[in-house]
Amino acid sequence: MPRTESRPRAVVALGGNAITRPGEEGTVPQDLANLGRSLEGIAALLQRGYALLLTHGNGPQVGNQMIRVELSRGAAPDLPLDVMGADIQGGLGYMIERVLRDKLRARGLDLPVCCMLSMVEVRADDPALAEPTKFVGPVFGADQLEACRARGWAMKEDRGRGWRRVVPSPEPIAIVERRELATLLDAGAVVISGGGGGIPVCRAADGTLAGFEGVIDKDLASALLALEIGAPELFILTGVDRVMLDYATPAARGVARMTAAEARGYLAAGQFPAGSMGPKVEAACRFVERGGQRCLVTGIDSLVDALDGKTGTWIVP
Amino acid sequence: MPRTESRPRAVVALGGNAITRPGEEGTVPQDLANLGRSLEGIAALLQRGYALLLTHGNGPQVGNQMIRVELSRGAAPDLPLDVMGADIQGGLGYMIERVLRDKLRARGLDLPVCCMLSMVEVRADDPALAEPTKFVGPVFGADQLEACRARGWAMKEDRGRGWRRVVPSPEPIAIVERRELATLLDAGAVVISGGGGGIPVCRAADGTLAGFEGVIDKDLASALLALEIGAPELFILTGVDRVMLDYATPAARGVARMTAAEARGYLAAGQFPAGSMGPKVEAACRFVERGGQRCLVTGIDSLVDALDGKTGTWIVP
Repeated sequence: MPRTESRPRAVVALGGNAITRPGEEGTVPQDLANLGRSLEGIAALLQRGYALLLTHGNGPQVGNQMIRVELSRGAAPDLPLDVMGADIQGGLGYMIERVLRDKLRARGLDLPVCCMLSMVEVRADDPALAEPTKFVGPVFGADQLEACRARGWAMKEDRGRGWRRVVPSPEPIAIVERRELATLLDAGAVVISGGGGGIPVCRAADGTLAGFEGVIDKDLASALLALEIGAPELFILTGVDRVMLDYATPAARGVARMTAAEARGYLAAGQFPAGSMGPKVEAACRFVERGGQRCLVTGIDSLVDALDGKTGTWIVP
Repeated sequence: MPRTESRPRAVVALGGNAITRPGEEGTVPQDLANLGRSLEGIAALLQRGYALLLTHGNGPQVGNQMIRVELSRGAAPDLPLDVMGADIQGGLGYMIERVLRDKLRARGLDLPVCCMLSMVEVRADDPALAEPTKFVGPVFGADQLEACRARGWAMKEDRGRGWRRVVPSPEPIAIVERRELATLLDAGAVVISGGGGGIPVCRAADGTLAGFEGVIDKDLASALLALEIGAPELFILTGVDRVMLDYATPAARGVARMTAAEARGYLAAGQFPAGSMGPKVEAACRFVERGGQRCLVTGIDSLVDALDGKTGTWIVP
């Protein structure tokens, strides 16, 4: 394959809603239908000559897998979170690759497309490892709490829904396969990787890798991935076309452009909720603060319009 | 990464027993421990300068996933066989990659290592698609037969064990990601791919790809993969050190070397059982008949000894 370093390189982080829409349970036919719509903008960018690495969410899919593991205890082996994350990188990566191949074929674009697994490394001494904060998996009744805790799980009440497992979500510090991913991009391939934030691993003192029971924030991992493969642009695709200020008030307004310093000011002022826009703006800030040229936050279906300046929020250094 | 076309290139097909031993259920700790032993020979070959693509079996793992899907019906979405295969390529690919990275690190070998998913294409008009022959998944009681058939499953009695689903196992004709895999090998990477025979897909008349409910024979897919990436050697690793003639009779003897024509003669004479050595010898014959230089069939732990001429069976054109 020809080397194509001259093509503009970007990482695109597909939000969970690119694959499973609110209210859906995440069946394979639903996910394939949603991807058929969501990947239109990606195909259009590839036609414009972009070299892309795609990351994606995996919430509903890994949640469904946790239900399967739970309901088959004793009949099939348990799976740790790192292996479940790897499984779902496989299943979703395949679906994304297949749908994208069909779209490129329909456009007459003969580009290599592939899915490479990636592990995301955290510090073995990250204090977050001892502080589980992130809800994962199904809701349990109070009567099941003891059995869950007996497995070593930290359990927490999820606002009136019931009890759920919580796991650590430490800082990503390195993408284990950065060289291998860069090789594929250098060769002109569209690469799908880092689904669900990547397979969570940390390194022992002797250098060996081990998985751990935790999850990595997908947007932070995508920002790191973009820096590690030298992509000057990061596109974070989500459910809204623009980052909003004073959201859900009469003064609500979209932001077309903000510097990282401005964005950090808004973050500190509590403008962006921790569970939704907050981590995306944080990831955007880190990306441009550490050398990225610019980060776009926009809706799944608005990618092309945003690149043409019609919508979207750009975060710049 | 430097191009390393001068390194001898081979495909290694790891048998299921490289990952899960007879009698084990295929838990993650069991599989990681087995891989720790099984990948020693692979690391030794890499130290000798080989450029390798590793394929592997997935029987116990995909079987366990079918049990999970079965026991969570109604609570979590069903999964078709192509997506399950992709999931397990992810989970097992990650485990193999991680264990191999540790082994190479321990040997001071700084080689790129990665896992790329692969889809294996069959002909949409392959008559085998209409003839389900391969047992998959758990055993059902006669009382569950009707419910299974209502899902559109073909069911068959598995010699006294009970009823099981049977699916087609058509001929692999192309590896969808052959270019992308070759790019990585050209760059010197050790690549894990094609687990479980690859994700089964076929192409519609308009060229779009679809998964199907079937499985691809792992050894036939490995032979095709080796041909498509231009590997002159194929190493099929299994539970025995040599192919045996007159197996389980007083005249039993190992074969050190046979031509494809000789091997085909033995196959025709019923020397190799259909469920075990037969498909391996068939894959070896096809490989050398279609341009491969030589194929080795040996035990997981005997790879280095076989390359040194101490054991193993070589099939040559």
